[in-house]
Amino acid sequence: MLHMETDLILEATELWRQRPGDPGELPGVATREYLREGFPVTEVRVLNQTGAEAVGKPVGTYLTVETDRVGRAGDYPKRAAEAVAGELRGLLPKDGDGSALVVGLGNRAITPDAVGPWAVDHTVVTRHLVDRLPETFGDFRPVAAVATGVLGATGVESGELVKALCQRLRPTVVVAIDALAARSARRLCSTIQLADTGIVPGSGVGNARYALTREELGVPVLAVGVPTVVRAATLAADLGADEDQRETLGSLLVTPKDIDALAAELAQIIGYGVTMALQEGITPEDVEYLLR
Amino acid sequence: MLHMETDLILEATELWRQRPGDPGELPGVATREYLREGFPVTEVRVLNQTGAEAVGKPVGTYLTVETDRVGRAGDYPKRAAEAVAGELRGLLPKDGDGSALVVGLGNRAITPDAVGPWAVDHTVVTRHLVDRLPETFGDFRPVAAVATGVLGATGVESGELVKALCQRLRPTVVVAIDALAARSARRLCSTIQLADTGIVPGSGVGNARYALTREELGVPVLAVGVPTVVRAATLAADLGADEDQRETLGSLLVTPKDIDALAAELAQIIGYGVTMALQEGITPEDVEYLLR
Amino acid sequence: MLHMETDLILEATELWRQRPGDPGELPGVATREYLREGFPVTEVRVLNQTGAEAVGKPVGTYLTVETDRVGRAGDYPKRAAEAVAGELRGLLPKDGDGSALVVGLGNRAITPDAVGPWAVDHTVVTRHLVDRLPETFGDFRPVAAVATGVLGATGVESGELVKALCQRLRPTVVVAIDALAARSARRLCSTIQLADTGIVPGSGVGNARYALTREELGVPVLAVGVPTVVRAATLAADLGADEDQRETLGSLLVTPKDIDALAAELAQIIGYGVTMALQEGITPEDVEYLLR
Amino acid sequence: MLHMETDLILEATELWRQRPGDPGELPGVATREYLREGFPVTEVRVLNQTGAEAVGKPVGTYLTVETDRVGRAGDYPKRAAEAVAGELRGLLPKDGDGSALVVGLGNRAITPDAVGPWAVDHTVVTRHLVDRLPETFGDFRPVAAVATGVLGATGVESGELVKALCQRLRPTVVVAIDALAARSARRLCSTIQLADTGIVPGSGVGNARYALTREELGVPVLAVGVPTVVRAATLAADLGADEDQRETLGSLLVTPKDIDALAAELAQIIGYGVTMALQEGITPEDVEYLLR
Repeated sequence: MLHMETDLILEATELWRQRPGDPGELPGVATREYLREGFPVTEVRVLNQTGAEAVGKPVGTYLTVETDRVGRAGDYPKRAAEAVAGELRGLLPKDGDGSALVVGLGNRAITPDAVGPWAVDHTVVTRHLVDRLPETFGDFRPVAAVATGVLGATGVESGELVKALCQRLRPTVVVAIDALAARSARRLCSTIQLADTGIVPGSGVGNARYALTREELGVPVLAVGVPTVVRAATLAADLGADEDQRETLGSLLVTPKDIDALAAELAQIIGYGVTMALQEGITPEDVEYLLR
Repeated sequence: MLHMETDLILEATELWRQRPGDPGELPGVATREYLREGFPVTEVRVLNQTGAEAVGKPVGTYLTVETDRVGRAGDYPKRAAEAVAGELRGLLPKDGDGSALVVGLGNRAITPDAVGPWAVDHTVVTRHLVDRLPETFGDFRPVAAVATGVLGATGVESGELVKALCQRLRPTVVVAIDALAARSARRLCSTIQLADTGIVPGSGVGNARYALTREELGVPVLAVGVPTVVRAATLAADLGADEDQRETLGSLLVTPKDIDALAAELAQIIGYGVTMALQEGITPEDVEYLLR
Repeated sequence: MLHMETDLILEATELWRQRPGDPGELPGVATREYLREGFPVTEVRVLNQTGAEAVGKPVGTYLTVETDRVGRAGDYPKRAAEAVAGELRGLLPKDGDGSALVVGLGNRAITPDAVGPWAVDHTVVTRHLVDRLPETFGDFRPVAAVATGVLGATGVESGELVKALCQRLRPTVVVAIDALAARSARRLCSTIQLADTGIVPGSGVGNARYALTREELGVPVLAVGVPTVVRAATLAADLGADEDQRETLGSLLVTPKDIDALAAELAQIIGYGVTMALQEGITPEDVEYLLR
Repeated sequence: MLHMETDLILEATELWRQRPGDPGELPGVATREYLREGFPVTEVRVLNQTGAEAVGKPVGTYLTVETDRVGRAGDYPKRAAEAVAGELRGLLPKDGDGSALVVGLGNRAITPDAVGPWAVDHTVVTRHLVDRLPETFGDFRPVAAVATGVLGATGVESGELVKALCQRLRPTVVVAIDALAARSARRLCSTIQLADTGIVPGSGVGNARYALTREELGVPVLAVGVPTVVRAATLAADLGADEDQRETLGSLLVTPKDIDALAAELAQIIGYGVTMALQEGITPEDVEYLLR
């Protein structure tokens, strides 16, 4: 199903609208647009099972921040982090300032898959400080953060590791950061998608046992994702390639030429944004200082 | 107590022998020496509490492989890995081929502390393959491996993470790899110490809750360590420095100039050695192939 | 001209043969095929200006070693290095054992462009040893090696830097290693192309002043290249995309998913192969030892 | 000669003053102290050959900026870069805005030796832009920058490479950045030394052919250095160790535990500082933007 070949809610809704015939209004889905720190934001709420089937995504709220770098001023990364923080804060459980577990999914050794682990490197962890240095960190939310590594290098599913940690750390929310696949080159490395639906690592596989979802982990799971690749076979399909042509493209990926620099910048934006969402009232400069 | 300023059993026994007066025979400790793959090995068994107090180390068996690189031939790394494998195999639980969890302790971002995580990169993991590809991996021991990261970067104690994983994965043995501190520059990066006593990360702190020991984790814990640093204050004390002089040396470390290359080589030797100890009958070439 | 959108001589000759109508025999070009260390090798000689125009490549000898990893045995990297060495040796100037300058072109910070600099890391340099340690290195060819970096990071064209070094070091041959662009995904990371024609970095630009050629540098220049990318616009053009569609693909690249690991392996094969071609009678194990 | 075992002018003058007997006034040397951006600066001018012999350093001006991180505020790196820029500007040739060549000396693969190459990564290069984008960069000084690599990895002395580049690029000034050795742990990673005397890489060797000096290169050479190590043998000598004890310490180095992070921060401070010294009127934020 081509419908499934995007991790982006905006592309999923576009696909629905491009269906042959008169698609009419997208059922079970509510959309609105606004600006945050000058960046366009689209909120898509998948309201019920009808909507979920139409767009091929679970029920929940999806926020897409468009952080296109073109024309960006010198303070772009900080403003983008502020926008991520502002949007993410809206998805956090309302019952306050409980502890959080931040999870970086993906493979450090494959650049377009490294955004998750790299973002963890830019996240301020405080769980070990809140008790020990209460005069300084007493007002901070306890935050732990791990990059789970990949199955081939650890022998442990990301979902298993996170479940084991949740059972021990008992966080009140999990924030999972991952690289995503898009259908169209246009959005690569230029949007950040937030959702309150959790995440299924390596989702094609559909291995629900290891999903990072509220059902599986017992706490709300927020997902933060960035599209860094288009599968070459998807691109080819869009250009009308037949099955044979698509097959020869196997596991090839389409990425921007400067993916190493773009992924590093996005990881920093997300790490800062997640930190500012979790810790009320701190600035990008504070994050910079705390990470030094 | 100067006695405690070494992680090496061989230095601890030397310190006892250098005590003023006639120290006599070291009580409660049995020592023997032999060669393995041409490398000198010293087995020190701390037999009882008397011995443990004399050397300041827990009861257990300690094997020190001297892998000094001087005069080494071209196949040195492979032979050293064979020696590590041979010695480590002797410490494994006898009841066979149950699953293992390999743990790399330490900080990737501090070179002399990175041997543990780097060794994990050279360890073959099979836990996820034994069930899925039984025709190829059915005879392999299921091995999982993680680098735990450091408290300041994760907010989670290494010992907590390993305990959480043990509760989930139920391994029959844990192998924990760590960089060690020596008292004398002579042994830096030229010996590998194996022990069946477990390990207490950042041991000075003495935070027993987070020890990687049989008592804490419920399974035997083998420790693999390499001395990569002498604390500058220890070196100064040995040279007769007074307390003021030692204090100015604070957290300075003494390392070989080529520590980056030495630590990388040792990490490979240990990763290969651990893999060959856990998987009966495979060669360094097999490990190279499986890691590719 | 689509004809120009490949750096591979084999693809250039295929393009000629696929022209509409009966193309007949490719004029001014001689081709033969054989095996080296079990790998298929194709020698293409562009004999004259007619041939050069037909294939869009300069007159010279091009050797393509197909090192496809499928079904490769454990000693694949060493055998591939032997094959590169054997073929490259045939392109070296016959007048003997003069000094060589090895040049790694490309950008370390962009994985698919990093093969050149990484290969330099696996090349044994001897220029500084031949005089100082004549008893050990007296029979070695003096070899220097540099990674030139990229214009945006140095402000110096690769060709300028190499020219400055040639004027000072006076090598008898330059070996330039670079990542290449292919038209078809099939050859990515699975062939190595050697040529005696020199190389024009960032060749699209056609900035002949900075070419690494015999004309410019005054010594023979051998080129060693590996295709690591297909430009997304080229792929799209092959699939019949119109100009608008191609334009949206801008500077996107198509690479294998595991490009980081593949590029690292190819860099090692090339570094070893170049070293063995330049230093008569040394083995992969010798190279490993000398690089340690 | 112990006198020689420091690269720091401040330590050299201290050594002179600590000589037994009444040393009196240091002859041929003028010193003054002041603040720059809140950091203490010491200017030492070695006025003549008498002064040069007394301190064991060439005639010239040495500026030491003390950037101790203790008590530093959040904007410490930027202020330190401003201080470096301000002091370095005073050492630049007065005849204006000619082109500059920035050189990073040292070994990327040995952390305490990597400050030079890493600083080059934080230096804005403009040589290739001044002509091509005159509307934007027409007022910029043309700056090129290279990390020379190390002899064992290139076969080319740093001094040879710089000389070859100077002959081609004809800069009006060379700025050479290097890691230094101190005698005392106190100054490690907490001072930056600027001088107009040039630099002799691996200076112990005294290989004057390859010096980076005005005599050798034909243009003024400014040196920027940071002490990152104390040789363990130097430390031991200071503590009264005999020759045997010092010998066992061989090539061991004493470094701060967090040398990786400190060296990275200093490299950024220096790269920014050099850029701001060379390009009148640009801010740290501009540098950040231009490097992105």
